[in-house]
Parts: sequence; C-alpha cells; structure tokens
Amino acid sequence: MRQALALARQAIALTEPNPRVGCVITDAAGRVLGQGHTQQAGGPHAEVMALRDAAARGEDVRGATAYVTLEPCSHHGRTPPCCDALVAAGLGRVVAAIEDPNVLVSGQGHARLRAAGIRVDVGLGGDESRELNIGFFSRMQRGRPWVRLKAAVSLDGRSALENGVSQWITGEAARTDGHAWRRRAGAVLTGVGTVRDDNPRLDVRLVDTPRQPLRVVLDSQLATPPEARILDAPGSVLIVAARADAARADALRARGAEIVEAPAPDGRVDLPTVLRLLGERGINELHVEAGRTLSGAFAQQRLVDEYLVYLAPKLLGRGRDLATFGPLTDLGDAVTLQFHDVERVGTDLRVLARP
Amino acid sequence: MRQALALARQAIALTEPNPRVGCVITDAAGRVLGQGHTQQAGGPHAEVMALRDAAARGEDVRGATAYVTLEPCSHHGRTPPCCDALVAAGLGRVVAAIEDPNVLVSGQGHARLRAAGIRVDVGLGGDESRELNIGFFSRMQRGRPWVRLKAAVSLDGRSALENGVSQWITGEAARTDGHAWRRRAGAVLTGVGTVRDDNPRLDVRLVDTPRQPLRVVLDSQLATPPEARILDAPGSVLIVAARADAARADALRARGAEIVEAPAPDGRVDLPTVLRLLGERGINELHVEAGRTLSGAFAQQRLVDEYLVYLAPKLLGRGRDLATFGPLTDLGDAVTLQFHDVERVGTDLRVLARP
Repeated sequence: MRQALALARQAIALTEPNPRVGCVITDAAGRVLGQGHTQQAGGPHAEVMALRDAAARGEDVRGATAYVTLEPCSHHGRTPPCCDALVAAGLGRVVAAIEDPNVLVSGQGHARLRAAGIRVDVGLGGDESRELNIGFFSRMQRGRPWVRLKAAVSLDGRSALENGVSQWITGEAARTDGHAWRRRAGAVLTGVGTVRDDNPRLDVRLVDTPRQPLRVVLDSQLATPPEARILDAPGSVLIVAARADAARADALRARGAEIVEAPAPDGRVDLPTVLRLLGERGINELHVEAGRTLSGAFAQQRLVDEYLVYLAPKLLGRGRDLATFGPLTDLGDAVTLQFHDVERVGTDLRVLARP
Repeated sequence: MRQALALARQAIALTEPNPRVGCVITDAAGRVLGQGHTQQAGGPHAEVMALRDAAARGEDVRGATAYVTLEPCSHHGRTPPCCDALVAAGLGRVVAAIEDPNVLVSGQGHARLRAAGIRVDVGLGGDESRELNIGFFSRMQRGRPWVRLKAAVSLDGRSALENGVSQWITGEAARTDGHAWRRRAGAVLTGVGTVRDDNPRLDVRLVDTPRQPLRVVLDSQLATPPEARILDAPGSVLIVAARADAARADALRARGAEIVEAPAPDGRVDLPTVLRLLGERGINELHVEAGRTLSGAFAQQRLVDEYLVYLAPKLLGRGRDLATFGPLTDLGDAVTLQFHDVERVGTDLRVLARP
C-alpha cells in the first residue's frame, strides 16, 4: 500500500477533477506483478494501468491481490468501471485504503467486487489516501473545494511593510515550496487588489508541472487591468465579478479571460458562491494567495480549511496584516485552529493549521 | 559528561551570579565515585561537592577523572580555588566542557591543573554547557545579561486584541513553560504600561523555584501605582526611572521597591544603561515580558539576544503588535533572526529565534 500511495502522489496535478489513485498488484509472495496510477481525466484509472502493466510484463494476475488507494469505481464515467476490469482479470483480493467519498457510490465498488467472490479489505493507508485527496473528498462531500490559504509572514505576522513591500519576506526554499502547493491545487485564487498592486502571474514556475492551475481573480467592479501579467501567463483565467461592466468584460475576454458574476448583497463578490462555482467546475483544492483584505474575508467567514503559513525569522514592526478582520472584542471570537504540521523549509518555518 | 551536564541543570535558579556547573568523578572503569553541582553563591562549587560526595561514599579519588562542565576556578572568590582542591585530592585527569568565559581567568584553571601534573582535556559537551550558561557567558564577555524577550501571540502575530484583552491567547502548557523560562532568569523586566494595564505579579508561580527572580520595571516618570501587585509578590523589585520624583520614589520605597535612575536623552529610560546596571548586579539572563512599545524598543535597538515566542493556533485579525517599531520602508531594515529551536508546547508552538 505504501508503494500504491507513492504512485498516487505521482498523479498530483494530473488527474483533476478525478482523485489521485495508485494501484499495485502482487502475488501471494508479495512480488509486484503490475502497478500504475490514475491518468488525466478521461484516461485510464490506476487499476487499469496496473493490469496493463502486468500484461505488458507477461504476468498472470489470476488470484493476485490489488492494493488500491481508493475504492475501485463501479460506474460508467468516461471510462468503464474498474471493478469490472478487476473481476474480469480474475483478481483474488482487493485491499482498498478508503471508500469512495461520493455518498452516492460509496461502498458500491466494494460490494460489486465481493459479489464477484473477491475478498475486499478496507482501511490500510486510509488516512494518507484521504489527505492526498482531501480536495476530492471536500468536493464530493461538501460540494466545494478544500480551501488552502497561503501566507508568507514575518514572525510578528506581517505580510508586507506599510508601503506594500513584500518581496521577499521568506526565502527561496519557501517560495519554491509554495509553488509545489500551487501545483497541487486545481485553482489559484487572488483578489483584484493584489493583481493591481503586485501584478503577479500566479502560475507554477519554480517546480515542474504537467498543467497550470486555473487562475481566479475576485474583482467585484471588474477593475483588472487588461495588461495584467496574470492574463499573459499560461493557463486559463477566470474573473469573478459582482457586476460585470460590459465594456470591461469584453476587453478582458479579448485577453482570454472568462468572466462570471457572483454578487453578494453588499456589492462584493460572494465567497460561498465562488466556492460552489469552483466545485461545480471540478476544482478539488483551491489555493488562496491574496492580500490582507481578501484573506481576512475568507478567514472571518470561516471558509478556510487549511492555513499554509510560511513564517520568516524576521520582525518587521508596523506593517500589513496576514488577514485583516475585526477588531474583535472577545478572544472567544478568534479564528481557532490546530497546528496540523510544522516543518522547517530552508531558513523559514512552514506551518499548516486547520480549524 | 552527560551526567555532569544533567547535574548542572539542577543548579538553575540556584547559583546566580555564578554559573551552573556539574561535576562527576569516575574511576578508570567509568564507575561514579562522587558527583555534585554548584550551590548558592558563597556555597561550594561543583568540584568540591563531588569530592565531598566521594569522601562521604568512602571512595578513593586518587588518579580518578573529574568531568566538569566548566573550567575549574583558579582564583580566591568567596570560596577557595577548585583547582587546588582537585590537585590536593590527587585527581589524575580533568575533562572540562569549556573554558571559563571570563577573559581575565580563562585558561588559568586548566594551566594550573596541568602544572600540577594533571591531564586536562577541554571541549566535550562544550556547546551544551555554553547554552546552559549563556547568560553567564554574556555577562562575562559583554558586561550585560543575555536578553530573552518573551511574547505570546496568535499565528497572525497579535499579542492582544485592540481593546487590550490578552488573557489567554496561549494555552496552559505554554504559560507553565513560560514560568520555567522566568525561573531560570536572574531578573524579569517589564514596562510601567504593562504594570498599569495588566497589573501582573511577574513572579514564578506555575513551577517550583528556590528563589524569585528580581522584578524590574522600566518607568521613566515613576508612575508605578504603589498598590501594584508586582510590589506584593515575593522577591525584590527594582524600578528604573528616567527622573525619579522624590515623593513618588518615597511612596514606592515604602512598598519595598528600590529606585534607580537611567535617563536617556529623549526623556525615556536608557535601555543599554539598564542592561549595564543589571550586569553589574550579577544578572546573567534577563527575561523581558513587556508590551508592544517596550518590546518594540528592545527589538529596534537590537538589544534582544533571543526571542521566545509562543504561537497560538489562532487568528485575531486587527489587534496589538508583538513589538511596535517602524514603519520600515525597506525589508533590508528588518530585525533578522534565525530559528534556533521550534517545539510544540501543548496546543501551541514555541519558537526560539536569535539574531
């Protein structure tokens, strides 16, 4: 299963909107007969890749055991059900890390395998598989992406000086690591303020990637300058406005951007609607990399599932917030989290915290 | 040497202004003949304690090896030189972790032992011994204490809400840990703003201690209320004013406080002078636990040797700074640190960072 999980990790940035799944087929002695991971959407799933690999090696998989990091699918999507392929190949046993999170199909794959006389065990490596597909689970179970808010701040919580200077608070290793997190996201989201002030590309550059995440700009008044660099970088751009001025929308569409509206009653962009829209588009993990105001709105509305904070060993004194909201009058109203993971990255500290 | 260092750690909060030293005497087979650590100032040093322990056990230490965490003293202070005691006892070898940091005596103890025919090796456990006596080294080499600035902040760097509420941002384990750090300091320093706003005792309560650190209040106008709780807590209080109004000084002296003046040209208390005064008083480690303004002054004047920051897994949004200074206009002017140690303490994170 460890090897199947390693294969599944190779599917990061490849399979969306499908989950990252790995499969290893072994004989009774534990010898690997075939292995593989899910390909791009529409391409074969991990189980089929592993069966093909075994066939290419000339291995006989009858009676063998398949270790698969997610319940084999039982429905006809863009590919035939993996269950049927496993049954047809004569597998003797399937060890699945975790059930499919889609409540409509969860357990059906396993039931179908058992009905065909295949022994099925579930749970080995379940936590790791769930973490690897945390966005897929979120979208299946809540209809919205897993929202990861990235920030780079000094030890005293400053994301920039008062004059806006923020390049660079953290070091090169942290910036590269940040691109690896962008890479695994289906979409990278920011606000128009950041687009105008910092003019970032927000694509994945510091690590290799088979595809660029969708870039999303929240821009209530459609004030994104048509010359913004985010429109030049490779990959698609979606601009979400509260009310889309036709002329501005045309200018931005001419630059390749797609424009949608998601107004909130206060005239700003409605964040829950944005998340629902992105979920409908198959975005599993959403990487928010925004300024203090938009970050504050996400934080205050409790829409962040995970804070990815790079802490630099610096003090900046007066400066810009990580996330502006409040002021609170009671500590009981704080956004309360738990430290999920803490690691040194170069000279900085990477903190993952979840509600 | 590991055991000698463990003994030395038992001397924390006991030996000031003297260093924390442990000593273990073993025979050629490594069997422990005697051991001990430095006692209160004026009491016996570690080497003498270990020799007495060996004598009490009826062990013969002639030709034995003494592991000692700091170079044995060679001068007559309040106790006779430890060198002479080791020579007189007939030791064959001394393994010392590190040389005495006092440049006037450094190496003389070892030279004296060698002159008496004792083999001396230096360096084993040197880093640990130096860390344990980092304040003693600071005072000997720089004439001022090691300054450790403690702060408890949210992940977004807030030490309090805008309304001043800060109890409690961090959890119980972090607060207890904070008292352990107070305990090892010779003095705990704060500002009059904290005394007036929070009215803390600033004594060591959550862990056992053989003595209370000196409490120091920086109070340029001598505005400390005579009813302040810091004057009630056990132990001595030193108030440092810029200019001491006679009537106020009398009222505070009547409450047991000592008053000294250390004016800076700007009418505030001069921090370098405070550090020099505390060094003269034998304070090895100074624990600064102050509000954003005084913390900011220490940070901006680059007088902090170590930041002890407890990070709570919370976001508070708008609120008070860890340390107020600036605004800077250039990131190159930031207070730059290195993460020295990062550890989970209960639900919080403890970060030690040094310039």
